[in-house]
Order: sequence, then C-alpha cells, then structure tokens
Amino acid sequence: MNIERIHAAAARARGHIRETPLLSSPFLDEIAGRRVWIKAENLQHTGSFKARGGWAAVSALTPQQRAAGVIAFSSGNHAQGVARAARLMDTPAVIVMPSDAPSVKIANTRALGGEVILYDRATEDRDAIGAELATSRGLTLIKPFDDPEVIAGQGTVGLEIAAQADAIGIGAAQVLVCCGGGGLTAGIATALENLAPDMTVRTVEPEGFDDVARSLSSGRIERNPALTGSICDAIITPQPGNLTFPILQRLCGAGMAVSDHEALRAMALAFAHLRIVLEPGGAVALAAALFRGSDDMGSDVIAVASGGNVDTGRFVEALALLD
Amino acid sequence: MNIERIHAAAARARGHIRETPLLSSPFLDEIAGRRVWIKAENLQHTGSFKARGGWAAVSALTPQQRAAGVIAFSSGNHAQGVARAARLMDTPAVIVMPSDAPSVKIANTRALGGEVILYDRATEDRDAIGAELATSRGLTLIKPFDDPEVIAGQGTVGLEIAAQADAIGIGAAQVLVCCGGGGLTAGIATALENLAPDMTVRTVEPEGFDDVARSLSSGRIERNPALTGSICDAIITPQPGNLTFPILQRLCGAGMAVSDHEALRAMALAFAHLRIVLEPGGAVALAAALFRGSDDMGSDVIAVASGGNVDTGRFVEALALLD
Repeated sequence: MNIERIHAAAARARGHIRETPLLSSPFLDEIAGRRVWIKAENLQHTGSFKARGGWAAVSALTPQQRAAGVIAFSSGNHAQGVARAARLMDTPAVIVMPSDAPSVKIANTRALGGEVILYDRATEDRDAIGAELATSRGLTLIKPFDDPEVIAGQGTVGLEIAAQADAIGIGAAQVLVCCGGGGLTAGIATALENLAPDMTVRTVEPEGFDDVARSLSSGRIERNPALTGSICDAIITPQPGNLTFPILQRLCGAGMAVSDHEALRAMALAFAHLRIVLEPGGAVALAAALFRGSDDMGSDVIAVASGGNVDTGRFVEALALLD
Repeated sequence: MNIERIHAAAARARGHIRETPLLSSPFLDEIAGRRVWIKAENLQHTGSFKARGGWAAVSALTPQQRAAGVIAFSSGNHAQGVARAARLMDTPAVIVMPSDAPSVKIANTRALGGEVILYDRATEDRDAIGAELATSRGLTLIKPFDDPEVIAGQGTVGLEIAAQADAIGIGAAQVLVCCGGGGLTAGIATALENLAPDMTVRTVEPEGFDDVARSLSSGRIERNPALTGSICDAIITPQPGNLTFPILQRLCGAGMAVSDHEALRAMALAFAHLRIVLEPGGAVALAAALFRGSDDMGSDVIAVASGGNVDTGRFVEALALLD
C-alpha cells in the first residue's frame, strides 16, 4: 500500500463519495478532558465508510470483470458499499450476509440492488461460501478488507482527516479507528504516515473481540475465540488480514478496547451533542476517546465514527442511557 | 437586506461556523418521487442554523456593546446560538426562554454560559420581558429573526446551498425552509436571488401555525391564533417579522404546511436513511419534500433541515413510526 494508490482511489471517487465533516462539541470535550474531533463517516453514502472501499474496488475492475459481476461477503456495511458501487456502474452484485445481521442492513442491501444470500455466522464459513459462488458464477470477489483497492479506498478517509486537521491547526493527534479486519485503519495509517506524520493511529475494538490489539501486542496474527456475543456486529472479524496486519504493525500504536455498554453510551452522547446516528461498531472509537483516555493521549484526539446503520431497537436502548 | 451583507457575515464567521453537508439518499428520492437534497443544519454548532445568526449579530457589535453584554429571547435554538457566540467573544449573555422549551435546549443554553430566565409562553410576552431587561441592565437585545445582522447570518446557509448545488449540477430547484419568524428564509432567499435565480424558496410551517403562509397569501401580516399545541416548538412564532415579511413577499413562492405526524415521520426517515437527528421543527421542510410534493415541484428539491435539538422521548416517539 502506498499514498499514490490512495490518491488514485480518491480521484476515481470524485463526485461519487462524500467528504464527511469533522464534528466536535464542547460537551464531549469536557467529558474526554481534551478536544475530541469526530470524523462522521456515518454520513457517507450507505451510512458507512465502506462505500469508499466498494467504489475503489469496483471502479478498478476491467470492463469484462464489471460485466460478469461481483460478489462480497459482509455483515452489512461492506455489502451496501459494494451493492451501491455495483449498481451505479451497472455491475451485477451477489452479497453473502450473516443471517443475524441487523435487518436494516439486509433490507438496504437488497434495496440497493444486491442479490442477498444469507448464511449462519456460527456454523458456516463465509470465505468458503464466497469463493465457491465466485468460481461457479464467474464473479469477482470483493473482499471486505484484505484487498489493496479496498484498503486504498478506505484510505481516502485519511486524506480528508489530514486536510481537515490542517485547516483547524492540528498537527499532532491520536487517531482512533473502529477496527474489524483492519482495512480502514491500514488505509488511514498509510495516508497519515505521508501527510500527517505527527499523528498516531490506534485501533479500537469491542472487549472480548480484540484480535487486532492482541496481534499487535504479540507480534503475530491472533484469532478471536468467538464471533458472536457482541452488539458491535460491524467490526467482528475472525482475525486481522494478511495484507492489513503488517501495515498496522508498522504504523499503529497500541490497540484499545471498549465494552458494549461504553459503545452504547457513546451512541447516546453522539445523539445528544452531535445530532448524528451511530451504530455500536461505529461508536467504539468515540467511546475510547470519551471513556478510555490516558495522560499520554495529548490535547487532541480524532475518533472515526465509521458507521450508522443501526436497528431502531438498539438505538432506543442506547438513548435510555441518557439522563 | 442585500448579498453584500450576507458575504460580510460569512467572512466574519470563517473558522467559527461549519459548512454543513448537503445529504441525500436513494430511499428518500423514491419516497418523494424526485431527488431530495437535505441541507443538514442540525450538524451546525449548537445543533441548528441559529449559531450563524448569533455569530453574525454578536460579531457586529461595538467593543462597548460586547463588554456590556447581550440578551436574547428564544425557545432554545436562538438561545444556544447567541450563548455560544457570546461566550467565544467574552460577552455576557442573558437568555429569556419559555418554561416549556425542551429541557435539552434549556440545559445546553446554561452549559454554554448563558444566564437563563424562564417565562410562561401562554401568558407572558417575551418581547416585553426582553425589552425591560435590556433597558435595566444596558444589554443589547439580539432579536431571533427581525434583525438585519441575524438575517444576514442565516443567509450564509444560502451561500452554501448555491455553491453546493452548483457543484452537483443543480440550477433549478425548489428550496423548502422550516419557517418561524422568517429570518432563515429571508436570508436564504436573498442569497439565492443573487446566486441561484432559478431556485424558488418556499416556507414550511406546522399545520395550524401557518402565519407566514397565510400572510403570503393575503398580502399582509397575519397572526397565529395560538402559540401552543404543536410539537414544532422551534418554529412557533406569533407572526412574520416586519423586516422579514417584505423579503418573503418579494422572493418566495406559496407557503406550505405539514402535520406534526408528518414531521415525526420525516425525523424517523432521516434517522434511517441519512443517520442524522432532527427535531420536529427542523424536519418540516423534509416532511414537505417527502409527503407534500406536487407535479409542479420539478426534479430537484432542497430541504433545509434546520435543527436537531430534540428531547429523547420525542425522538423515540418518532422512531416508533418506522416499520
């Protein structure tokens, strides 16, 4: 991965991907004890940063590949990102989704034109299902994170962070990123290594599903013991990717983890003070900024709010935590 | 009011007021039967466009006036806008608020450093209270809409709409604006008259509180028969302003009105498809775009989502309307 590839992805995305705002609130600053800047990727098309990687990957295909179609496996946000890109580029899209994904994500993926195939997250291997379908139908597999074009697409978030932080005079900061397989984190870290070298990128995961933090600590790829049991469905993956992990290892600080309850509290505070809707997996970085700060974190922290596709019931559960 | 005054307000606001995004969703387009663009002023500092007018007014004061302090009367959003501007410019701020304003607005105004004085919306006259306090304490009254600097500040929304619409190739559109006293609408209409003359600005009010629509229809200022009974607290005012009404009369199309239920449905759809939080009074323009379209509305409509300061219970009530 290199910055040129990210710039190329940004050039292909122009007019199709939103520049999302960098939000803040004095109320959140007070809770955190430092300035907190929220990169609101929940406002991206399809409600998450995954629209970037989907666009980057589909737009990099040959005309023949586009005509044949693409396949993706995803708990929902990558699904929508690929489905949207495919539809706008007249490409058939098959999406393999876990049957316990939030119903809003399944419904939106179908509405975006994706052919949805459901599987059981606990007993079936989505990689195997995806590979088999790709072969039998001649589809190009768009992996959710371990793909150079996808990483480059997610890295365009880093280009925007560098420019937006510079515009408000911030050079040094910790950049906290909600992390599943590491595509978003790897892309942002690559962009910032070049454009904002005084920033430190750190992963944030749900407690008990912190495969990336443990892998960064041990120096080799560690797996999660289970793939169910967290409300942060968007960022539960078996292990960091073979492409993403070396990038994270080279560029990132120590990984962080937050509880589901802290993710819900961050969702509630984002509702009250930023007037945005976050999903649990998209709120863990903000939760870490608000509730897991440490003295060495410095005066400014940038939290990537990676997505906002949440079922109503879960959101109401979060709001109940407000006074 | 003229475009130069709006440009001057924008220059003073640089670095202090956010350029808010213009959002869209294919799901909302399908409901409306046309393309709908949402100017997300709920993402503005303090959660509404009122931060613009507050900044414009306080930043236009003389040093002597700023040192003495300001006073504002407001159901909440103007209160927060003035309180924020005053605090950042080291100016004391007294805010007169109705006792039935959403508690989140009262709490936030206090947290922003405003000295809050409550009054009864049904039996007391906020104008008289404000004028008396202004005289006795030597404070400068910052009116919520009938003030040239406030109108110019709100007009900066129109500068952004013109630039953002041009960037996506939209020249002609109806621009629907949530309307209380008419400051936001008058400012936007003045900006667009100059910068996007093919756009038509229209006011949107709650049914039963459509003083502006009736005034536009009759050609003279009409009053609302009551000031309570709608959930759209942000935009319930006795009548259009003496400064704003002639501008609306000269520049706006026919006024529209929506029901409280339609405002709640628009809030729910904005949650699901835009991942943003709107308050009822900030959702009426989107509601009109979604549910009150007509054949003559054209292919593109821009709805200003003017604020997102909503109590949790009201928001949960809106979410219950989703499938």
